[in-house]
Amino acid sequence: MKYGSLFLPDSKEESFFNADGFLVAVSNDLTLVATCERRSLQEALDRGFGKVLDNHGSMFKDFIFSSPLPRAYQFLDGSAYVNHVELVRRARGAKMPDSFWTDPLMYQGCSDSFLNPTDDIVGDPAWGIDFEAEVAVITGHVPMGASRDEAAGAIKLVMLCNDISLRNLIPGELAKGFGFVQSKPPCAFSPLAVTPDALPGWDGGKLHGVVKVDLNGQPFGRADAGIDMTFDFPTLIAHAAKTRPLAAGTIIGSGTVSNKLDGGPGKPVDQGGAGYSCIAEQRMVETILDGAPKTPFLQPGDHVKIWMEDYTGQSIFGEISQTVRAL
Amino acid sequence: MKYGSLFLPDSKEESFFNADGFLVAVSNDLTLVATCERRSLQEALDRGFGKVLDNHGSMFKDFIFSSPLPRAYQFLDGSAYVNHVELVRRARGAKMPDSFWTDPLMYQGCSDSFLNPTDDIVGDPAWGIDFEAEVAVITGHVPMGASRDEAAGAIKLVMLCNDISLRNLIPGELAKGFGFVQSKPPCAFSPLAVTPDALPGWDGGKLHGVVKVDLNGQPFGRADAGIDMTFDFPTLIAHAAKTRPLAAGTIIGSGTVSNKLDGGPGKPVDQGGAGYSCIAEQRMVETILDGAPKTPFLQPGDHVKIWMEDYTGQSIFGEISQTVRAL
Repeated sequence: MKYGSLFLPDSKEESFFNADGFLVAVSNDLTLVATCERRSLQEALDRGFGKVLDNHGSMFKDFIFSSPLPRAYQFLDGSAYVNHVELVRRARGAKMPDSFWTDPLMYQGCSDSFLNPTDDIVGDPAWGIDFEAEVAVITGHVPMGASRDEAAGAIKLVMLCNDISLRNLIPGELAKGFGFVQSKPPCAFSPLAVTPDALPGWDGGKLHGVVKVDLNGQPFGRADAGIDMTFDFPTLIAHAAKTRPLAAGTIIGSGTVSNKLDGGPGKPVDQGGAGYSCIAEQRMVETILDGAPKTPFLQPGDHVKIWMEDYTGQSIFGEISQTVRAL
Repeated sequence: MKYGSLFLPDSKEESFFNADGFLVAVSNDLTLVATCERRSLQEALDRGFGKVLDNHGSMFKDFIFSSPLPRAYQFLDGSAYVNHVELVRRARGAKMPDSFWTDPLMYQGCSDSFLNPTDDIVGDPAWGIDFEAEVAVITGHVPMGASRDEAAGAIKLVMLCNDISLRNLIPGELAKGFGFVQSKPPCAFSPLAVTPDALPGWDGGKLHGVVKVDLNGQPFGRADAGIDMTFDFPTLIAHAAKTRPLAAGTIIGSGTVSNKLDGGPGKPVDQGGAGYSCIAEQRMVETILDGAPKTPFLQPGDHVKIWMEDYTGQSIFGEISQTVRAL
């Protein structure tokens, strides 16, 4: 089943009701929308999903979708594609600790109000605005100390994420060791979150398939999310739950999808490579190859689109489609 | 006004309804409880507080309270008592960067399900379980880029916090730079959250008054939260909101309350000092004075109580009262 949350601009108590969204089920071909017994996705996760109600022929294209959980009680974002982390280090001439291959990096991200998948990205270009294309899962309740199998069984939904990052604010926050407060503003997620049983390419731990990223209408990233994922989702969930339970509605992100491509630093899509799922990675490769980055971070008016297709070319999660706007 | 959230163990849909708690208003002397127009504190923060309904003589002592927000969309914890941070560094022979006096340390903490104020603290003693007595505020909506004045105006409620910390897991996570995932399990908050207008000692930015901490029935901490707070709450809120809005129901913590005491490292309560608001600080002082810590972290059966009194001796927020239990 595919689920989404409607954003209703004409709602009388707009900000209150839109804060949690109206849960709908969406047909596999992304044409029809049906209401559900539960009002919001969080309620469905708390109480069980209940029934999909009668479909009165509402058309998918007539609605604005928010992120499936417009706000969540928890968002933990991993760095499961360790290739991405290694490239960051190589670009600044540092060796990555070997422990990064066995002990996942993960930070607690803000989750108090996510962007809609079509919302503008608003910020000061001096902050170094970047996108990061990721896969994310939503869990049910996970007990403290959960095993990998318990963690796998708790995965309720899968979706895509644009983890917006403010690159020029990251080094200062990293040095403090306390994680990302100012350098990771709210993400956007794909309009649809899909149950594992209805998801082509889902193997129980990873999502196999190409995460497509277009920047200003040109192919920028075509990395396969099922390749080079060092820590799969059950491993990430078990890491998060080592010392505490995770509440239903916890979102776990994969970190920037990144393919290693025969040990090389990766090629742009127009040179036959898998490209990059964030601008920072292209800049790192430029730094490694040419001594300095040349691709700028996002500027006002830039547009990023993130999506995934099944083998028939049908969009699985709908599109994240965002334009940058200056503060 | 004082507000709290009831935890109803006999509720039919216990886990669902208790997840957000039942909002009640509590009389100033902590004897009577009245229901409210809004069902939960989060709803009150989203829609406005509405009316306090008729008081049918329900007694405060007859109820179990959860944390005022049993789960929240955001918990950002600062380190506003920089003395605490400097002691940590001194104990390990490191100099604290000067920037720590002007740029707040803050991490995104887990908020998906807080402990009740009387819940056991469950963990493996090998993790180095510690308490941290803090002051915390709950905000309304804060716009991105909010000024200090806007931030001050957004403070809706004030409460106390026990920010439980797993000391032996912190160094590894600090070194990764991604903040605290495993080393900061869910906190507990005081039963009551108090509006600024009803709060003795609140000056609009800081809470003046002694945060009392007893360990196993003996005075352990008597630090004044209004002294040595380098960054007040409006400053912490504005820091958090620099690059993003904060949703209504955001909790901002002060970090461990710590008094500098004439530049010295601080004395235990039984030697006439203000004592310590966490065991780690006592251990740091022992390390600085004697070369090694001697006070152990919390062990199963240990009990910690955190509260604050007004000038008449009346408890302001009720008590956090927790016993440690082995996993």
